[in-house]
Amino acid sequence: MGSTDRIKNVARRVAKWHDAGHQIVVVPSAMSGETNRLIALAKEVQNPPDPRELDMIAATGEQVSVALLSMALQAIGKAAVSYAGWQVGIRTDSAFTKARIQSIDDKRVRNDLEQNRIVIITGFQGVDDDNNIATLGRGGSDTSAVAIAAALKADECLIYTDVDGVYTTDPRVVSDARRLKNITFEEMLEMASLGSKVLQTRSVEFAGNYRVPTRVLSSLTDPLMDLAEEASSGTLISFEEDTDMEQAVISGIAFNRDEAKITVMGVPDRPGVAYHILGPVADANIEVDMIIQNQSVDGKTDFTFTVSRNDYNRALEALNAQQAQIGFSSLVGDAKVSKISVVGVGMRSHVGVASQMFRTLAEESINIMMISTSEIKISVLIDEKYMELAVRALHKVFELEKE
Amino acid sequence: MGSTDRIKNVARRVAKWHDAGHQIVVVPSAMSGETNRLIALAKEVQNPPDPRELDMIAATGEQVSVALLSMALQAIGKAAVSYAGWQVGIRTDSAFTKARIQSIDDKRVRNDLEQNRIVIITGFQGVDDDNNIATLGRGGSDTSAVAIAAALKADECLIYTDVDGVYTTDPRVVSDARRLKNITFEEMLEMASLGSKVLQTRSVEFAGNYRVPTRVLSSLTDPLMDLAEEASSGTLISFEEDTDMEQAVISGIAFNRDEAKITVMGVPDRPGVAYHILGPVADANIEVDMIIQNQSVDGKTDFTFTVSRNDYNRALEALNAQQAQIGFSSLVGDAKVSKISVVGVGMRSHVGVASQMFRTLAEESINIMMISTSEIKISVLIDEKYMELAVRALHKVFELEKE
Repeated sequence: MGSTDRIKNVARRVAKWHDAGHQIVVVPSAMSGETNRLIALAKEVQNPPDPRELDMIAATGEQVSVALLSMALQAIGKAAVSYAGWQVGIRTDSAFTKARIQSIDDKRVRNDLEQNRIVIITGFQGVDDDNNIATLGRGGSDTSAVAIAAALKADECLIYTDVDGVYTTDPRVVSDARRLKNITFEEMLEMASLGSKVLQTRSVEFAGNYRVPTRVLSSLTDPLMDLAEEASSGTLISFEEDTDMEQAVISGIAFNRDEAKITVMGVPDRPGVAYHILGPVADANIEVDMIIQNQSVDGKTDFTFTVSRNDYNRALEALNAQQAQIGFSSLVGDAKVSKISVVGVGMRSHVGVASQMFRTLAEESINIMMISTSEIKISVLIDEKYMELAVRALHKVFELEKE
Repeated sequence: MGSTDRIKNVARRVAKWHDAGHQIVVVPSAMSGETNRLIALAKEVQNPPDPRELDMIAATGEQVSVALLSMALQAIGKAAVSYAGWQVGIRTDSAFTKARIQSIDDKRVRNDLEQNRIVIITGFQGVDDDNNIATLGRGGSDTSAVAIAAALKADECLIYTDVDGVYTTDPRVVSDARRLKNITFEEMLEMASLGSKVLQTRSVEFAGNYRVPTRVLSSLTDPLMDLAEEASSGTLISFEEDTDMEQAVISGIAFNRDEAKITVMGVPDRPGVAYHILGPVADANIEVDMIIQNQSVDGKTDFTFTVSRNDYNRALEALNAQQAQIGFSSLVGDAKVSKISVVGVGMRSHVGVASQMFRTLAEESINIMMISTSEIKISVLIDEKYMELAVRALHKVFELEKE
């Protein structure tokens, strides 16, 4: 939420839903720029800041915005009440700045809803077993909203964002990318984790685990737009069996431009080789994505994996420091590679998606460096310079521009 | 507390006390200007703001400053932990924006202190029985500090302010006004309620009721000044029997410039007259200070009282609206009067303070309009234009400039 004018607009939108007879719980984010301001203040005093104390500070941003929204609703004649996470029993673990929600006590909220009050709850935060405030980290308000919706068994969780839904691919790359009216949780998870950052991955996981139908829609529309129109806008993330439409084979194409590839050459092929290579990388807090181990020749093998481009140099350093222990001959790297994935639950029942994908890339003379697959996703690693070309060609061949 | 630089200075001062072997609990105020900023934000959304929601917002100012101070202490090598009021069981009533502390659970704080941690607790706030955040109103951090000191049976509660102690009178009026090294709670209470606004009256009451020796001292000194010197600076507010010094007859002269006087003329002198006159005034939320009822003549009497000058016109309106019911003939008012009080526990055992005071004023040709007395105070109402003259003459005659 931005200025107080934006808060008043949110209040009008919420009041519209309430007028239509819905019981409403709202989980607003902090005001625009507020969380950054608070973190900067903390770093002026201690850098890096103590995580527990940082959470005490960061949590205040949402505490201010819930109370402001409650007052904005009261100012237009609605009964409303705001709560900090600890006031409605949002329990987390003690991993300050990146805590996970463990449970929510819905009693107080249900009572308010029965009294026809609109309830506003701080996102992004809860308390651990010792009543220390713990925040969920960036984007945590989405996760809180889904978790609260799950605890209350809400009909739907509406996530208002700065985009109007989930697209078949990034419209900045493919101009006729199309907004999806429906997507399954599994597909959304693959899209989210592959770089289509509409929702925090964790909030999608939560929605999937607790079966909370979740709609991503735009906060930039007129708050008084027609309710029925708003209710069917955006993209509904739900379960496969919940969608009555004929499922498309492929739902979308996700990509991640900023990948890097590292090949560890001439490693002795013995048990534990993967652990010996990836251990030092993990110890440096670097996440590894795709992994391939080649067929061994003369007792030696090559081992290739990808990391985020930001972590490329640190990963090389971590490996070089362990060259003797790992016993590799050399490292070969490429920091200009990108990953492209076609995603769709429909591919489970359709053979030929992979061959269609590989043929399309071959026809464009794009070399595939690595392949990895899951039940509903095929990812390939290619030279960064062909990324846009590949996305466009795949978007076209799978006819994603068509309804 | 002001900028983060000021917070770092507070940390240095606190660390100095801790280094000397003291267990320390700190109750910092919000950062300078922060509470005003938050209240202004609330008023942009709803005016007047809902008190419960306003408290949710206002309480965040202290939550930020406790965590910043904890981090500043950690940054200089001290173990420290911050708590919001609700985390250490500070219970209040539900009078949002002006709540009163009812109880404090000291278990968690004692445990931290035993672990050699410095504990930082939000002032100005607690939670009611339903876990709603309630603030104590302006100046509430002082009251919180005293209440926490009482709960922990602290040796002394140090209140750092922007003045260096309590003076015999306002140094802006009497240039040789002297800082008092000691004052009793009763004297301090009279001084505070009479307009010497060093401490919030409620915090002095609390300190008196729970017998917490409380020192008022300056926050503007060098944080690394000699500890023994700092420990004996300012003014110690304590009990009469705790001070071994010869008690002066008069400790100070308080005054309140902005008074107004109203006389209700020709009221039938029958039971209930005071109630009939003061009832409408109280109903208008106006506080009455001095009250005099004259000897009645022919079954009629005059009734005079004082109010704060801000309330003068409203008090006249409230009375005029009830003229028929009260049955008075006319109202006579004067909005240019001031009250002057001499205060001192020593006057209990010394006759002649009142006559000394009245003679001094007479010698300066100052007319006394009203008189009221308590065991340790004599107050007179005079024309506003003689106020400075009267204060200086009384300060001199009672030799308050002398140690």
